[in-house]
Parts: sequence; C-alpha cells; structure tokens
Amino acid sequence: MRRSEQTVPVAIGPAVPPPPLLEKAVLEGGARLAELDAARALVWSGGPGEFPNELPGSIEWVQLPAAGIEDWFTAGIFARHPGVRFTSAAGAFAASVAEHALMLLLAGVRYLPEQLRAASWRQRDFFPHVGSLRGKTVTIVGAGGIGRALIPMLVPLGAHVIAVNRTGNPVTGPGIPDSVETVPADQLGKLWSRTDHVVVAAPATAATRHLIGADELARLQPTSWVINVARGSLIDTDALVAALAAGQIGGAGLDVTDPEPLPDGHPLWVLPNAIVTPHDSNPPQLRLAAFADHVSANVARFVDGRELLALVDVERGY
Amino acid sequence: MRRSEQTVPVAIGPAVPPPPLLEKAVLEGGARLAELDAARALVWSGGPGEFPNELPGSIEWVQLPAAGIEDWFTAGIFARHPGVRFTSAAGAFAASVAEHALMLLLAGVRYLPEQLRAASWRQRDFFPHVGSLRGKTVTIVGAGGIGRALIPMLVPLGAHVIAVNRTGNPVTGPGIPDSVETVPADQLGKLWSRTDHVVVAAPATAATRHLIGADELARLQPTSWVINVARGSLIDTDALVAALAAGQIGGAGLDVTDPEPLPDGHPLWVLPNAIVTPHDSNPPQLRLAAFADHVSANVARFVDGRELLALVDVERGY
Repeated sequence: MRRSEQTVPVAIGPAVPPPPLLEKAVLEGGARLAELDAARALVWSGGPGEFPNELPGSIEWVQLPAAGIEDWFTAGIFARHPGVRFTSAAGAFAASVAEHALMLLLAGVRYLPEQLRAASWRQRDFFPHVGSLRGKTVTIVGAGGIGRALIPMLVPLGAHVIAVNRTGNPVTGPGIPDSVETVPADQLGKLWSRTDHVVVAAPATAATRHLIGADELARLQPTSWVINVARGSLIDTDALVAALAAGQIGGAGLDVTDPEPLPDGHPLWVLPNAIVTPHDSNPPQLRLAAFADHVSANVARFVDGRELLALVDVERGY
Repeated sequence: MRRSEQTVPVAIGPAVPPPPLLEKAVLEGGARLAELDAARALVWSGGPGEFPNELPGSIEWVQLPAAGIEDWFTAGIFARHPGVRFTSAAGAFAASVAEHALMLLLAGVRYLPEQLRAASWRQRDFFPHVGSLRGKTVTIVGAGGIGRALIPMLVPLGAHVIAVNRTGNPVTGPGIPDSVETVPADQLGKLWSRTDHVVVAAPATAATRHLIGADELARLQPTSWVINVARGSLIDTDALVAALAAGQIGGAGLDVTDPEPLPDGHPLWVLPNAIVTPHDSNPPQLRLAAFADHVSANVARFVDGRELLALVDVERGY
C-alpha cells in the first residue's frame, strides 16, 4: 500500500482553491488533501447556506468555521447528517481577544497613553504612575473561552487571578494553576474591595447588563483599570465616564463600547485615562489564522483517533 | 519554649523604623523581627557606606538590596565579614523590566499608538494592522535576568522564543519550556530572517554597541517590532530612525535611548511607529516592592535551611 493510501484523506470546502492556510493546516495535522467524494473528513470555511445537502457516505467528521453555531442548528444541518460528527471552532478565537485584553491592561497599568502623548522625557512625572501586575489581583468576570485563555497569560506576570463564573465550580484547563480562585457570580459584590483590576469577558444577557455601574466603580481602587473585551452593554457607560473623569479608578481599556460604534466626540475618545480600540481584538486575518490552528489540532486528533475539540452536542444544542 | 524563641530572629537596617513593606516581607517569610544583637540574619536596605564595621557573632546571613554588588566588594564588606553569607538582589528587579518589554511589544504589535491617536471608530482602517504574537518568533538578545523573566511571559501567548546568549548553552529556569531555542551570539546574523520581533536585553559592552544597525534592520520584516529595555547604545539610533521612517520594520518600543535622555523634538518622539518611555520600566516604588518579594522568598529559604537565592560568591567576585 502506498503511503498516500494509508494517510487520512480530508477535503476542504467550499472555496476553490481552498485558502492555502487551511491546506497547510490539514497537512500539518498529518492528513492529506482529497476531493469530497474520496474524503473521510471535511473542513468547511463557508456558511450554513452553502453547505451540501448530501454528504458522501465516507465523511465521518465535519469541522465548522464558527464558534457559535446557532445558525447551523436553525438551518437543520445536524439533523440532515445524523451519522456525521460535527465540531465547531469554539475556543479557537478566544486567544486573540485575550491577548488584546492583556495588551489593554498592561498599557493602562504602565501608563502608556500619557507617556505617548507627552512626547518628552518626563521621567520623574511618570515614575509614580508606572504600575505592575505583579502581586495584583485581577478579577476576570466570565470564565468562557476568553477568560480561560487570559488566565495563563496573567499568571506568569505574578498576578493573582479570580475567575468569576455562574456556578463557582473551579475553573480548570491547560495552563490554569490551582492558585486561581473561582467565585460564583452571585458573590461578585464581595470581590470589588480586593480587586485591583477587572477584565469583563462575560456574555451579554439581561442579567449581565450594566454589571459594572456606579456602585461597582466606587468600590474599586483609584489605580484600578477596567477592561472590556466582551460587549459594551456590560458596563454603564455614563457611570464609567463619570468615574474616569473624577479619577475614581485608574482607567478603562475598551474594545467594545455602548453605544457601538462609539460616535466621534464622545467623552471616552477624549478622557486621558480611557483607551478605546474599535472592536478589533480579533480581525479577519487573525480569525483565519486561529481557525487554521484549530483545524490542524483537530485533524491531528482525527488522524490519531483521539477525542475531537469542540464536538457539537446535537442533543443539547451547542 | 515559647513560639517566639523557636522562630528565626531577623533584623532590618539601617532605616529606623524599617520600611513596613520589608517588615511584612520578613514576617511572611516565616521569621520574626529582632534587634541586630539578637538576630541570626540582617536585611539591609542601605548602601555599603552605612554598613556596620562589625556584626554580632549571631549573624549568619545578610541580604543586600542591590543586584550589582561591585560597590560592596570595593568597600571591603565581604572581606571584613568572612564568616557571614551574603546574598544580593540579583534577579529581583528583572520581572518589572520584562513586563515593560512585553507591554511595549504588545502595544506595538496590536497597533495601539495609531489607535490612540485616531480618537475615532476606524475599524476597517485598523483591522489589517492589528497583529498577534501567536505563532510569531520573538528573538530575545540577552538571556540574563530580564530575558529569562520575559520568556515565561511570552510562551503562553503562543510565541516561539529564541534566546540568544554568549555560549549557546540552553537557557533554563522556572517557566522556561524546552521549546525555547538557545542560539549563541555569534550566530545572531542567521536569525534575523526568521525573527518576527526582537527584544534587546543584553548588557552594554563594546561588543554589543550598535548590535542592531542598518544591516540587521534591513533583514527584519515590515511587521517586525524592535524592543529595547537594556541600554540605548545597543541600537544605532540613526539607522533605526531611517528604518522606521521608511516602514522597513513595523515599529520600535524603547525604554532606553541613545542619546538619553532623548531630547525634545527628536524624530523618535514624532514617528508614528515609535513608542518611547523614559527609562521608567522599573520605577522606585516597584523596586522596593520587588526587593520585598525577594526578601520574603530568601527569609523563607533561610528559615527552612534551604539554599539562598543570589548567594554572593566572594571568591569569584559576584
């Protein structure tokens, strides 16, 4: 038997030719590229509307390109292919957003915005304002993909991390040490006084709207930075502007805002202790690269017969 | 025997009263505070000029506050106290500088300076410029305290790290995985083409002057950031300004410059892809906090009879 016949054949669709990054990912995962009819797996980079009505009987597994797959349920894709395992891209895009959150937090804590504006060697003016995450407590509200990706980035900086989730069940995962505290969301009110910095990474729901408002901001420290990489509605913008203007907190680093887009002339564009990036923590070229990494990892697992990442649970609907 | 008699007595000098942060550090290390005459160890936060000519015979160990201890050799302190072990603060101050380097690198790679200046929701303009360290190769020139502290901060971001030292002997230490490559300095020329970003963290010597000049900059990528947290002289400033102005590299993040202080109106203050902070990566309040952490760790080791950190080798002179 030739080597190519021993290697697992994987198809990529729907774009012809497929993105080179995805071809590379399949090969790096240890499989070979094949046409759909001759493949055991399909890596799909399009939407549910373009998805084939029928798949060849040889297809055992389909990798989807999205983290949230509500549309795929709505389109009936899973019901139509009952014998096929589907995996989503859940978790694949979290790392870039977490990296952005870390950047905003470090830039704030180390007083970068004022230093950039100064354009002058004002060492003695800046010294007292340059902080560090070492020994500081960072509370991450929301322990989904982004929160869990951020924890291993914060720990080597010497920060103490508190992860807030719904249940309070200890957050675990690769690179998450036992020293990380997990606190249930209904205890969040008790955390503010011992929180140095907050990263908001929770989903936007009725329950999380204005999770951070005037009361919460008043209980943080004058050196606290508030970072939001989730949804603008989780923070009460008016209360935040008031706290920033009064120096009640150190500053805010926001990749998402309410309203969004943030209109020109808004106070958040002008306040010296606010950093706003226009929801660009995960731009298209980084999304494709992250999807390719995910594909490569899952192809390797498929080839080895190991458990796949982000397997869709069709019964439970996610 | 009362508990206080079982606990190791440690003195702090010369300031009276001692800095509360140092008192706390001694207690956290598991020792108790004592006068010099009744102590087994001395934590010293002053200079060599104020150091006692004679120490009580009960003193077994002295913790010094400096990382470089040439002055203490010159003052004859070690020769005068042959039966006493001395430890320096070597390594204690590296983490803050490493954190600053990470901040400069992330701010650059994620295009923060332009985004701050824009003060407008220009998402589509920024998307193509927002990068990530994931999958990128970061070459750290110099694997001393700062370089070794930076490695564990970069690894969880998915960066591949190349550490450059004199010998090429593999760099090891807490949080440094086997995936880190170590390359000897005389092979540096071969690294530029596969380097995405450079962090300069080497000592300033005749051999390292203008380590990064026009040739090296020409071999980096148009998206490469060059970070310097060591000494300004390691980079040829004129060549750097030319490369930045031409867009030959992505940008430069500099906590040290040549000349230093950087005069008002210098091109590095004006170039949009240069970030300059005025040598404030390790300001006084962070130095004291870092020294306290070091004291706490070493007191705990002394109490437990374990090996002390940064033990001075009097024979070898460091």
